[in-house]
Amino acid sequence: MKQYVRFSKNKTIYYGIIENSKIHHISSTPFENYDLTSEISSFSEVDILPPLIPGKIICIGLNYRDHLNHIGEKPEPKHPEPFLVTPSAIIAHNSSIILPEGATQVEEEAELVVIIGKTCKNVSAKNAKDYIFGYTCGNDVSARDWQKNDLQWTRAKSSDTFAPIGPYITTGIDPDSLDIQCRVNDKIVQNSNTKHLIHSVSKIIAFISSFMTLEEGDLIFTGTPGEPAQLHPGDKIEVEIEHLGILTNQVEK
Amino acid sequence: MKQYVRFSKNKTIYYGIIENSKIHHISSTPFENYDLTSEISSFSEVDILPPLIPGKIICIGLNYRDHLNHIGEKPEPKHPEPFLVTPSAIIAHNSSIILPEGATQVEEEAELVVIIGKTCKNVSAKNAKDYIFGYTCGNDVSARDWQKNDLQWTRAKSSDTFAPIGPYITTGIDPDSLDIQCRVNDKIVQNSNTKHLIHSVSKIIAFISSFMTLEEGDLIFTGTPGEPAQLHPGDKIEVEIEHLGILTNQVEK
Repeated sequence: MKQYVRFSKNKTIYYGIIENSKIHHISSTPFENYDLTSEISSFSEVDILPPLIPGKIICIGLNYRDHLNHIGEKPEPKHPEPFLVTPSAIIAHNSSIILPEGATQVEEEAELVVIIGKTCKNVSAKNAKDYIFGYTCGNDVSARDWQKNDLQWTRAKSSDTFAPIGPYITTGIDPDSLDIQCRVNDKIVQNSNTKHLIHSVSKIIAFISSFMTLEEGDLIFTGTPGEPAQLHPGDKIEVEIEHLGILTNQVEK
Repeated sequence: MKQYVRFSKNKTIYYGIIENSKIHHISSTPFENYDLTSEISSFSEVDILPPLIPGKIICIGLNYRDHLNHIGEKPEPKHPEPFLVTPSAIIAHNSSIILPEGATQVEEEAELVVIIGKTCKNVSAKNAKDYIFGYTCGNDVSARDWQKNDLQWTRAKSSDTFAPIGPYITTGIDPDSLDIQCRVNDKIVQNSNTKHLIHSVSKIIAFISSFMTLEEGDLIFTGTPGEPAQLHPGDKIEVEIEHLGILTNQVEK
């Protein structure tokens, strides 16, 4: 298991490896062959950035049984149900989710996010994990009134600040049994485990890559469990996933 | 009016300005301050590339009255209805649209494509054109069975090769009254004018930028008129828009 963080320090952007709660700067992105440099920073000295800005974000809807129950959907989808979120909606750990004008019911959605490591097309579920670089926490922020009334979910899911990701990338773990939780102002509102995904990470990659080329750095949000909570100005939202740390964002109007 | 083409020659990628049917190479992208170089190419010497690879593509659904009639939708949408297409679906002029396995009814959709020139948020319709760089032709290729049966339009609209754009970028024209046509194997199948857009280019930019930051190079597909035609292997598809040239693609299985 390795953990990579992207951050800015003295107005320069770096990647580092986290060891013993310190950041060891590396010479390039973790997607390339990198060297450890001699520089070490503490978290208090840096601003954490989104772990990467991807070429695309694919999200999977209706992928936990208890979430289906919550929204009154009965049958489990026969295949993963992908939708797109634009990378311009991404914000970092510790940044603010801005409630947009006119959206009356904005909710969080805690999700395991998969980071693709290598270009792939037509991958089998059996080999899908060979194309994963790592994982991070995501919050698929959703404006329910727009989700309900617009033709597609673009405004509901891709408004500015609606895609918090981070705080870092974790590699070398098994994505199929990770505890996942969301807390709003320290109260647990979602609490599940990725073993309850209707379509597993491997099945999702196989399905998406059957029609769309996945590329290095592409993100897949894998779906949200249970009952997402409505966000209000001043709220502190924490998405915590086993081995992936805590993604914290505050809410502003 | 200027016309910029992106192309490869001897394995290097360039931009050029089209003058008297020749390509005058320029020193950078047309989004920057560029100089004319001394090099001139003819179209027969180069491979035309997509005019750019954007950060995002936003498309507008249900934006011509006669298309609404065709698909049995009655009321005109009160606001532009955006959906996303991923940039990995883009192909160039003269490249092949590949009909994906399992999609039984794939159709073309000829569309005026707007290219954003400057980052903007919360732009008024009155000022929207200040943020446009130029225009190109687009084909919003759509798999109708997936569009009908999937939760969202991702597989229907973002499958590989489903976003042909080009052949070049035209600047300095009025987008509000351009003839637009699609021909399949030289037979006219769509024939309209952008004056029939339900939501004008300016209104579209104002609406999208009310919730989403638009950035340099972002593309907006503005909607398709009339009755799109089904594609079959071997078909030649031409999208022609006044001042924007002819975007030609062939269809393969």
